[in-house]
Order: sequence, then C-alpha cells, then structure tokens
Amino acid sequence: MRIIDGGVCAPQGFQASGFNGNIKGKGLDRKDCALVTSQVKASIAGTFTTNVLKAPPIQWTEGVCIRGEGRAIFINSGNANACTGSIGVADAQKTAERIALALEVPVTEVAVLSTGVIGVPLPMDRILNGVDGCVSALSPAGHLDAAQAIMTTDTVAKEMAIEIPLSTGPIRLGAMAKGSGMIAPNMATMIAVLTTDARIAPVNLRAVLKDCVDRSFNCMCVDNDMSTSDAVVCLANGMAMAEPLAPGTRDYEAFSEALNQICVAMAQAVVRDGEGATKFIEIRVIGAENDNDAKTAARSIAHSQLCKTAFFGEDANWGRIACAAGYSGVKFYPEDLSILLGDLPVVHEGLPTLFDETAAKAIMSQRDIVVTVNLGGGPGTAVFWTSDLSHAYVSINADYRT
Amino acid sequence: MRIIDGGVCAPQGFQASGFNGNIKGKGLDRKDCALVTSQVKASIAGTFTTNVLKAPPIQWTEGVCIRGEGRAIFINSGNANACTGSIGVADAQKTAERIALALEVPVTEVAVLSTGVIGVPLPMDRILNGVDGCVSALSPAGHLDAAQAIMTTDTVAKEMAIEIPLSTGPIRLGAMAKGSGMIAPNMATMIAVLTTDARIAPVNLRAVLKDCVDRSFNCMCVDNDMSTSDAVVCLANGMAMAEPLAPGTRDYEAFSEALNQICVAMAQAVVRDGEGATKFIEIRVIGAENDNDAKTAARSIAHSQLCKTAFFGEDANWGRIACAAGYSGVKFYPEDLSILLGDLPVVHEGLPTLFDETAAKAIMSQRDIVVTVNLGGGPGTAVFWTSDLSHAYVSINADYRT
Repeated sequence: MRIIDGGVCAPQGFQASGFNGNIKGKGLDRKDCALVTSQVKASIAGTFTTNVLKAPPIQWTEGVCIRGEGRAIFINSGNANACTGSIGVADAQKTAERIALALEVPVTEVAVLSTGVIGVPLPMDRILNGVDGCVSALSPAGHLDAAQAIMTTDTVAKEMAIEIPLSTGPIRLGAMAKGSGMIAPNMATMIAVLTTDARIAPVNLRAVLKDCVDRSFNCMCVDNDMSTSDAVVCLANGMAMAEPLAPGTRDYEAFSEALNQICVAMAQAVVRDGEGATKFIEIRVIGAENDNDAKTAARSIAHSQLCKTAFFGEDANWGRIACAAGYSGVKFYPEDLSILLGDLPVVHEGLPTLFDETAAKAIMSQRDIVVTVNLGGGPGTAVFWTSDLSHAYVSINADYRT
Repeated sequence: MRIIDGGVCAPQGFQASGFNGNIKGKGLDRKDCALVTSQVKASIAGTFTTNVLKAPPIQWTEGVCIRGEGRAIFINSGNANACTGSIGVADAQKTAERIALALEVPVTEVAVLSTGVIGVPLPMDRILNGVDGCVSALSPAGHLDAAQAIMTTDTVAKEMAIEIPLSTGPIRLGAMAKGSGMIAPNMATMIAVLTTDARIAPVNLRAVLKDCVDRSFNCMCVDNDMSTSDAVVCLANGMAMAEPLAPGTRDYEAFSEALNQICVAMAQAVVRDGEGATKFIEIRVIGAENDNDAKTAARSIAHSQLCKTAFFGEDANWGRIACAAGYSGVKFYPEDLSILLGDLPVVHEGLPTLFDETAAKAIMSQRDIVVTVNLGGGPGTAVFWTSDLSHAYVSINADYRT
C-alpha cells in the first residue's frame, strides 16, 4: 500500500470540483457545493443513517445505490435538506436532474447529499447555480476543492488516496470525508465519498463497503448523536482492470483490506477533527467473550461524558473507565478487569495498581492516548476511537444554529 | 399532601446525624459521615445500580434489603469503597458491625453505603471513628446534618418531608438525596434515603419502591454515566399505624402515590443541582405507541449532548430534538412529529412552523423549560428530566479525581 496524491481524483477516470454557491445566503467566502464524477458508469454502493428522520437526499441516494450504477455524486453543505417534507424530496430530485442533464447521464445514476442546518428548504436557485458552477469547474485536480466544499464545522479538509498492487496491476482508491460533530456509531453528521478504479460488481461492493464501515466509521464517536444525513458512498469505475474482482480471490481480499484502511484513516481523521477535540483516544478492549461484547464495552467508554472530560483534564481517572465498562451491559468478572493507560497498568485483576501518578500524567498529557481494557480471558476484541469533551465543544454547540 | 419540616427525621421514631470523619484525610471543614436510625425494627427495601462493578457496600446492603428488616443506614462520602476487592467487602462488613454493636441491633439490619472516589480502600480508622461520632450525635433534629454529610459535588443539601392522611390517621415520609454527576437512568452516583412511619410488609415496600424509582430516579439524566454506588433505600418503621398497608386498598394507593411524589421531588432536586447545570428541562413525549417507546424517545433527547448544549446556549434548536427522537430506535412517521418549546409549536406534523424566534428565545432563556414531543396518535407517554451541558460541567469533571 502506497499513499499517493489526488484524493478522490487519484483513481483513473474521476474528476471533482468545488464551488461557492452561497447556499447559506450570507455571502461567505467559502465553497459549499462539491461534485465528483466518473468518466464511465461505475458500481455504486452506500451505507446510510438509520435515523427515522433520514433526509430526502439520503432517501434519493439510497435508491441510486440499490440500483447499483452511478456516475456522479453532488454534495452541498450549509443546508441538510432534512425535515423538509415533500418539498425536500422534490428538491433532491430536481438537483439530481440538473446534474444528469449537464453531464448527459441517466438521473438514476446521480447521487445527491446535503449537510448543514435542518428544517430549512434548499434554496433551489442557488443550489442549481451551484450545480452549474461545479459542472463547469470539473477537473482531475479538483479533489481538494471538493473536500473543502463539504466541510461544515470541520477545521481541516479530509482527503486521502492510496495505491495497491493487484495481480492484474495497480489500482487506486481515493476518499474525502466531512464531519466533526454529531458523530456516533452507525455514523453521524458524517459524509464520506470513496472512489476507486477497481472493477467490482455492485452486490460485492455493497458487501465489502458494509464490512469496512462497520470496522471504521461505526467505531468512532465525538458526541453520541446520529444525524439525519449520514452517508458513505463508494464509486468503483473499473478503469484499472478488465475483469471484476471475484469473492474469495487474493485480489478481492487485498481490495477489501485497502478499502478498510482508507475508511479507518478517514474515520480517525474525523475524530481528530472532532468539535473541540484536543485529544485522540483509542479504546482497545480485549479478553471479552466475543467481538460484539468487546465493541459494546469499548463504545460505552468512548461515549462516557465523564471519561471524555477526564481525558480533557488529563486525569488518569481509571475509575470512570472501569465504571463505563461496568454499566455497558457486558458481563464480566470484576476480578478479571485490567486497564492500561498507554503501557502503564493502572488496574490489574480488579484492583488498582500502585502506579506512578507522574508517569500516568505524562501519558494523559499526550495528544494521542491508547487505553487498553482487558475484560478477562475471552477471544473478543474491539477498537473504538473517541475524542475528549472540552470547553470548546460546549461553545461550538451552544450556538451552531443561530 | 402537606410539606413538613424534618427531612428523614419527620416520620415518628427516626433519628439522624452527620459527622466530620475526615474521610478524605485532607482535614476539610465538612461532614462526611451520616447515620439514619429507626427506634424500632423497620421494613427495608432498596433499588441498586446494575453496574457489573457494584461496590462492596452495595452488595452488603442488597443483602440487608433481601432479608427485609432494617434499623440503620450509615453513609460516608469522600470514598466509594468501589473497585476495592475483598478488602472492600470486609470493610463494608466491619463498618456495619461497629454500628450494630453501638446501637445494639443485629448486624444484618444495618445498611452501609459509600460515595466518592473509586479504587481507594476505605480509611477504616477514620470510618470507625466516623461511625462513633455519628452514633453519639444521633438526634431527631439531625436530618440536615445527615443530608449535608452525604454531599459530594452537590451544591445544596437535598431533603424533604411530607405528611398525608390515611384512614387510620396521618403518616409521614422523609427523604434525603445526594448526586449531581454520574446521573443516568437506572440511577447514578446517586444515593437517596427514604423514611416513613407507615407500616408495610417488606415484600410490598419493595414493589412500591421499585415502581416509584422507575418513575422518578430512573427518569432523569445529568450525564449518562451509571455509577458503581447508586442506591435508593427506604425504611418503613410502622410507628404511625397498627396494621400493615394491604395492597389494593385506598390507603395503600395513597402511600404509593406519596412515596412516588417524594421520589420525583428528590429526582428533580438532583437534576436541578446537576454538575454545571444552569437549566432544568422536562422532556414530555406523547403520542407514542406505548409508554416504553415514549420513555425511550424521551431518554434519547434527555441524553443528547447536542440537545443539552443547545439548551445551555438557549438556542431553539428543534432539529437536534427531532434528530435525537429519530435515532432513539423508536419507530414513528416523520410526518406525525410535532414539537413544542413551552407552549410554542416549532414543528408541526413533520415540518417546522414559522415560529417567532424572539418568542422561542424567551422560552429558552427560562431556568425551567418544558419540551413536548408528539410522535403521533398513540397512547404512550413519558416524562424525563435533564439538565443542560455547560462549560462548568466540563470544568467540574475535567479534574474531579485529582
């Protein structure tokens, strides 16, 4: 695996663009419309929020992904087109139609996503103007513009690309993501677009993507709120290979692993840029009865407001970590519980060690902290990523809407 | 129902005391040991944390409550005697034995509870000294001392007493509670002691108490962390009546209702004193398919970090409220969803109303806010109480341990 430049445009046949469509109507100096296109028809797959109030663009794009063929993904920030009723549904479709017309592709192959404020109808004049702007600006160098255009409270654009060798030659995968608040398992106000020039049937792409999302975007948490607009969408246009990847082959495994790695990298980038985050904490749970139990315990710790404020305070408060594992619903024997901060054992077989507070403080003062929780002798393991809960989180979210 | 003075000492035959046992060893000028006793053997019942790591005193007191007969409850703050292994179990028992000896009652009738830091063995010399100090100080006027002694990060002592008429004459109920962080459903770092001079068999007291706790202490949230030390314990000494309350009678119902009211009042007091809380928010969910669904949706909103920061920011961010209902796991039709802030409709049948922002801001600026969420035409309802998430919460919890 080799990290390369180019973001979502790194795989062959992809172009992207970003454009200032003034979606918020405030004349801000920032891009808020993004477009990613494939030169040829691609397989498309997606995973989406399970929120009952899923936004109209999510409903539209789920339809595109069920059919499995895609050519373009348009995303606007500044307005989520959520809780907008039948007007929102019509607006999502109108947006897709405009793109289809401009790119001369079937409307059923155009995904649209929106992120931003809830409950305000899309300003369609400006959206359609944004579509036109994006289409005009399409370029193989437009990846960063696109990654910037999808940002909301994000402080940095998140993109990445990698190349891996398959038996048929190299393939590339590109990604961009946004999201820094409303981040919780089963996704969040989180949008990721993945591109690849691998060739893979939609049904297989769907299976691989679901597995990757479960091990990446569904293993992170900034706050515990799942938005109405989460989506991870992947386009695979096959331009780097003639025959589709066949399940069970080494190439298929290599592709799956690469897609997982780029998903993990994007998920971690989202947590690192978590609203008000000053720290990146990896929660590793081992020794659980099974992986599911391990994930439940890890999630419980990752979500705990008390653990997250202790991380912010750089306080080696293992009691809160133990406590969060204890109320997670996972059964374990208290006398089996061990906890390490970095390499420092702070709880061993149910009892606190006489650890050196200075050493503990040094570990807690790092930007990156690894917490390992051993629940016993079982084979179950899981990893979860979380951020700390800071004053800045409160400030950012105390008045985001107004 | 009449509110009276006297806290846990208001019912006949109860005494209480608070004492500075210097449990933290820092020579602080504050009480940290509390004792509540009944002059005669009482029925005792309790509900306790479900945390796997339940603290040794909880295990001890559960045993007392299973037997159903109680004479005394001792509580220390400053040290939770949690994650202390077999030493902690022995220490809880030793504490109970000292009290039993001093009061000349069976050790099996002495409940002990501890709240404070996790993972540090109890300083037994100081604890036993605290026991002695509490026994010496016992008085029918000691209720406030006891209520003060159980405080940790609480800013106010919480106590209450009421009197109600039964067919056999008046009875009284008293209560004291502590808890301001680690407050989540199924209790929290929350301890409540209830006393009454009603006469009721242990098995019935247990049933009534469980029902009351489900409708009070289990309907509140400050953060979402359930501690290892939660407990609600009730002593009913029967001194106000000759015959025990019989299920199905009017008196039984009146007693149950009174116990529920005092539990609700204490739960609300705990939320009002939530760590860093500047607001008290009542979440009412109506129109759900059943009460359980309503409670699930209410809990989801009450727990949402984004909703709680919006309350702190006095922002009428109904989108986050809708969103939290949407990801609660409860099924409803988006087009049925209505939301009111106070009396102001902000969402009607799935769509935002054109509400007056000034009016909304005025409602959000209140100290007490009622949010009503209607999920549709069902009969299910629930009420949940929560606080806002403020900068002060982060400050308090960023360094509580050290």
